[in-house]
Amino acid sequence: MKKLMNGVDTILRESLTGFCAAHADLVTMGEDGKFVRRAALKQGKPALISGGGSGHEPLHAGFVGHGMLDAACPGEVFTSPTPDQMLAAAEAVETGGGVLYIVKNYEGDVMNFEMAAEMASGDVMTVLTNDDVAVEDSLFTTGRRGVAGTVVVEKIVGAAAEAGADLASLKALGDRVNAATRSMGVALTSCTVPAAGKPTFDIGDDEIEMGVGIHGEPGRKRVPHKPADAIVADMMDAILGDFDASGGPALLFVNGFGGTPAMELYLVYNAARARLEKDGYSVARSLVGDYVTSLEMQGCSITVTRLDDEMAGYWDAPVHTAALRAGM
Amino acid sequence: MKKLMNGVDTILRESLTGFCAAHADLVTMGEDGKFVRRAALKQGKPALISGGGSGHEPLHAGFVGHGMLDAACPGEVFTSPTPDQMLAAAEAVETGGGVLYIVKNYEGDVMNFEMAAEMASGDVMTVLTNDDVAVEDSLFTTGRRGVAGTVVVEKIVGAAAEAGADLASLKALGDRVNAATRSMGVALTSCTVPAAGKPTFDIGDDEIEMGVGIHGEPGRKRVPHKPADAIVADMMDAILGDFDASGGPALLFVNGFGGTPAMELYLVYNAARARLEKDGYSVARSLVGDYVTSLEMQGCSITVTRLDDEMAGYWDAPVHTAALRAGM
Repeated sequence: MKKLMNGVDTILRESLTGFCAAHADLVTMGEDGKFVRRAALKQGKPALISGGGSGHEPLHAGFVGHGMLDAACPGEVFTSPTPDQMLAAAEAVETGGGVLYIVKNYEGDVMNFEMAAEMASGDVMTVLTNDDVAVEDSLFTTGRRGVAGTVVVEKIVGAAAEAGADLASLKALGDRVNAATRSMGVALTSCTVPAAGKPTFDIGDDEIEMGVGIHGEPGRKRVPHKPADAIVADMMDAILGDFDASGGPALLFVNGFGGTPAMELYLVYNAARARLEKDGYSVARSLVGDYVTSLEMQGCSITVTRLDDEMAGYWDAPVHTAALRAGM
Repeated sequence: MKKLMNGVDTILRESLTGFCAAHADLVTMGEDGKFVRRAALKQGKPALISGGGSGHEPLHAGFVGHGMLDAACPGEVFTSPTPDQMLAAAEAVETGGGVLYIVKNYEGDVMNFEMAAEMASGDVMTVLTNDDVAVEDSLFTTGRRGVAGTVVVEKIVGAAAEAGADLASLKALGDRVNAATRSMGVALTSCTVPAAGKPTFDIGDDEIEMGVGIHGEPGRKRVPHKPADAIVADMMDAILGDFDASGGPALLFVNGFGGTPAMELYLVYNAARARLEKDGYSVARSLVGDYVTSLEMQGCSITVTRLDDEMAGYWDAPVHTAALRAGM
């Protein structure tokens, strides 16, 4: 294993310290590194808190700031944060509007966020994301996995919170965005968890994993590597075939898993966009880049959100975080 | 070779098409894909044009837009664009203020940009970047190589152009920023050029290449892999030892080569920052992420610019490009 690190016990803390120092205008580290929070809070606004295992950066700490999250709780690599972390984050950033947890659907995360919600004194609601169409149940999940669509939920709900929406409205909006969002991923290579020291899975030089999870969990099937157009066609079949309706304005989000050149991501975007237009969608908004990664895994996911006017408006609203910035 | 592509002859064009579609609010493709240009030009402003081999994305097309470049000319992967491309770009975006070429110091690029300058009818000046302290001459270079510091030059000169500086002032500023900037890289793995189909260099599971170039060119030496703190110490020794003076405000820029997890980049940033502070610098500005890549290579470079007030002011000025955005 070759990584830029000093030791498996310190990699997360050293990285978070660097992150908070590099973005000190936006974020500060919470006590004992339990969470990363906004440097400045807005009184009375419902607090948006997310979190999950580390190794998916910039998710979630990269989305803390105006227009998105108030705090993010980083677990160890690919390991849920603890209820203690979520509770500490909630206590630090709740300013009278209650707390909305945004949780990716993995058993550990769901259980720990639920426990934190039960321990909380104030109002807490939760949006659970499960946008991955690849598999119904998985290594760490009952039901579908929450993957890159989580960023779309965080952006749109974050903008609504900034605009003054109350806790119940944010919960409803988050559920609606999640329901309008589908994703699927493909892996060309594995990733290596620092504490494991070896690749999470073995894959041949001529194989790809269709429907891979963001922890390297198995997807739908292992198939021979093939041209990007054919890979994208399979992914878009799965994504678009899962919607109840088709056509209309869509957000097209091509997400790199960490080890994929930008050149390839834009090529995938180009193919996915052509397919959407052929199927009667208009690509109304776009996002291309590394937003929900799996360490250094090569591959990408495609996310499509069927946008309504409210969602599109919130997508366009100003945001100022380490990983996403617009309009300010 | 596993890449998300359809063929080596089409990868660049399909990717550029996707890029221009995803960022149609900012850029448009020039005739025959010879260049990427701003969607809207500012009359009378000197035109800033850069370019170079592809495979370093987001450099350079990702920096086309308000506050940075007016056009970027993409060559084939790791291959200089042709004079024809630069000339076409200049004709498309020159609006009365002359043309400033920003060129990384590689023989092919230097020759082709010079040829384009000679063929041009209007005023043309060139800023040559050569911030890489690793080696004096290299596989493709006489003198030092231009690497990630080029982004710093493009940002600061771009802001000055937006603020109304004339061509000669921009040339002088660009030279001054380059002279205040030093970089050095390290590779953990090789990259694979699509047309070659195999890794550019072989490297053992326990080796790293100190001072690697952004095309995978050899650096200073191949050494056994070691803790990040020791790697960063070597890089910072080389960078800081090369300045004529020390201390004062600095921009610290940790650049990923394409295949490096963000977690590791922030850890490197943390170590480099500590070293700067120990040596009497203040880290006045920071940038961390994939900005000048080598396809999917794992590793990173560190860039330090000794900032004066003028440079810092321009660094903070609004910018709106695909890869860098602030204040608008």
